[in-house]
Amino acid sequence: MRTKVIGYYNSKFGELWNKSLADLIDEAIAGVLQSVRLARADIDAVFFGNMLGGILENSLFNSALIAQIMETTVPVYRLEAACASGGLAFQTATNYLKSNKNKTVLVLGAEKMTDVSVERATEALTAASAAEEQIAGLTFPGLYAMMAQVYLHQYRYDEEHLAYISVKNHYHGSLNEKAQFRKTITVDKVLASPYVAYPLKILSSSAISDGAAALILTNDPVRVKSSRSAVDVLSSEVATDCLAIKNRDSLTELYATQVAAEKAFCEAKIKRNRIDVAEVHDCFSIAEILAMEDIGFWKRGEGGKKAKEMSTQLGTNQRLVVNTSGGLKAAGHPVGATGVKQIGELFLQLTKQAKSRLVKNAHFALAHNVGGAGGMAVVSILAV
Amino acid sequence: MRTKVIGYYNSKFGELWNKSLADLIDEAIAGVLQSVRLARADIDAVFFGNMLGGILENSLFNSALIAQIMETTVPVYRLEAACASGGLAFQTATNYLKSNKNKTVLVLGAEKMTDVSVERATEALTAASAAEEQIAGLTFPGLYAMMAQVYLHQYRYDEEHLAYISVKNHYHGSLNEKAQFRKTITVDKVLASPYVAYPLKILSSSAISDGAAALILTNDPVRVKSSRSAVDVLSSEVATDCLAIKNRDSLTELYATQVAAEKAFCEAKIKRNRIDVAEVHDCFSIAEILAMEDIGFWKRGEGGKKAKEMSTQLGTNQRLVVNTSGGLKAAGHPVGATGVKQIGELFLQLTKQAKSRLVKNAHFALAHNVGGAGGMAVVSILAV
Repeated sequence: MRTKVIGYYNSKFGELWNKSLADLIDEAIAGVLQSVRLARADIDAVFFGNMLGGILENSLFNSALIAQIMETTVPVYRLEAACASGGLAFQTATNYLKSNKNKTVLVLGAEKMTDVSVERATEALTAASAAEEQIAGLTFPGLYAMMAQVYLHQYRYDEEHLAYISVKNHYHGSLNEKAQFRKTITVDKVLASPYVAYPLKILSSSAISDGAAALILTNDPVRVKSSRSAVDVLSSEVATDCLAIKNRDSLTELYATQVAAEKAFCEAKIKRNRIDVAEVHDCFSIAEILAMEDIGFWKRGEGGKKAKEMSTQLGTNQRLVVNTSGGLKAAGHPVGATGVKQIGELFLQLTKQAKSRLVKNAHFALAHNVGGAGGMAVVSILAV
Repeated sequence: MRTKVIGYYNSKFGELWNKSLADLIDEAIAGVLQSVRLARADIDAVFFGNMLGGILENSLFNSALIAQIMETTVPVYRLEAACASGGLAFQTATNYLKSNKNKTVLVLGAEKMTDVSVERATEALTAASAAEEQIAGLTFPGLYAMMAQVYLHQYRYDEEHLAYISVKNHYHGSLNEKAQFRKTITVDKVLASPYVAYPLKILSSSAISDGAAALILTNDPVRVKSSRSAVDVLSSEVATDCLAIKNRDSLTELYATQVAAEKAFCEAKIKRNRIDVAEVHDCFSIAEILAMEDIGFWKRGEGGKKAKEMSTQLGTNQRLVVNTSGGLKAAGHPVGATGVKQIGELFLQLTKQAKSRLVKNAHFALAHNVGGAGGMAVVSILAV
């Protein structure tokens, strides 16, 4: 049978100074198993997204740590694809379920980032850029700042257009009790915040976060029947692009997103205008604008104008609501957890568990997770 | 159709000070594609095993680097499972091919370890042990040393019994032009070498190495028909165990190996005595002895005696020859490359390309790759 998501749990995202990476993993596993009333022994395989454990904590090989926590000998796959690690873990799990019948698997994403300075964490994130870019002094925010500069210049927008993305996502974050930032902000406040890398400001940028998220996927009819709620995975596709942005034809498009989205819609056999709710990768405000254009929700160059219209904010009676979790910006961006949280947020939406941020009558949902500055993109489509 | 390995290439293993990780990846991709006369565009997905790129070079997200080198947008999966990263990349590729028909994929493993001091590299390798073990001062060699102490005490062997493993593997390495160490050694020389962690000596231990290895796998009948040589993948299974060895019931067994081997033989539907040639994980001499017992080739506690008999050395007219590549000990242990090289060596054996180290009339082969101190094991069985 078609793969279904039957359970989701995420920890609070934020600066969780009293929790280690192992604590976060432990909490997410216990939480998601409890939510679906399954035991550790019911899980046939684990897919784990984590980026920085090795660099920041000298703790690689968390697959065996997970096996230890789960008291299991089943396969545990750790996937690393920078900020797309969680999305890739989900995608790899869907691959696994295509060739293994009647299985139930755990998809886990976790990151512990706040035990080091923001500078050290940013340096580690920059691990996702090419050697020649690191040597030139480019940081991870610097790469997206260059894309933002070209975009604003090419389509004649200014920093105000970018600011609306953050305002919208903070509003959504204010409705999500697990979000790192729960205060609403204004365009003026975004514009008054200090630059991180021109034209991107503190309030244009996702934060350094701790957190974990977990999903239960199954293609076992017995498990589906006994589950409280289930959503179909219509497709999950991944595409890659060159690592160094200097090697790309365009700085205002992420080609990996375009390819992954095209494949995902093709596989799901639905049109773009059917999507009711989406989580897209907004590590910086410019990233959400590019994502909306690259996925094909907005026309090329239209993003600045569309962002200002706030049409993707909850309650505007528009067709498509974007980043109801608060996105990376307000929900927080514990890197390996992000792609898993995106799927989880859509699960909550499609199963009507999203409380005050519920998008009513949502039937189709899309998640979009990006690695680095566009070297990889994972696009997944869910439905009820 | 059943998945087949149709091509293999590995770089020289050793201290390759004039080559970066990217250079090694580049060489392996070009080499393996040339060996099968395929173009980059013929590859449908890439599975990449690498452990330490992030820690030692601040270069995570090499999946996008590989996409850049391949000029492709296809999925690139980076798997990390400490020293089993390469084996897990191979195993994940076999999963992928089970659910995707008529596909051809690249399995790649690479590691660049000699740009830092041996102490730094050892610290990074220790990343694969549990936090509570690192804090207690345990290093990666220290973990295996403890297992060796218990094994020697429990079965009344001494350091001499361990030494024969290194002597055999160095003899095999002398026949492998890609091996890091090509000198034969004697038992006296092993015993006279300094201790790394009692009772393990320098010559009981695999080295810090650079290197890359690549395989082409396919389930496309057209590709198989046009290939010069092909071997069947009968099975590839992975199992996990708790990370910290203090949590295990026994210090002289790797339970993950036992589980993975049992599953692999069950899936392959052959008995253990059918295996003609094997590559087993000998990061330290004790590891090969435990592996032979855990896989079921040798009886429990018999390993010390069997090692001294040198029955698994090439040319002894015995049934099973082990680590013809030189193993991790003599061929070198560029971590992510090792599990891929193991499969590659068996491919060379089964297709009669192993030159002076050829095991004649070999039909069945087994590869065994371990992560950390036994937190994961991958066992794969091949046949012609």
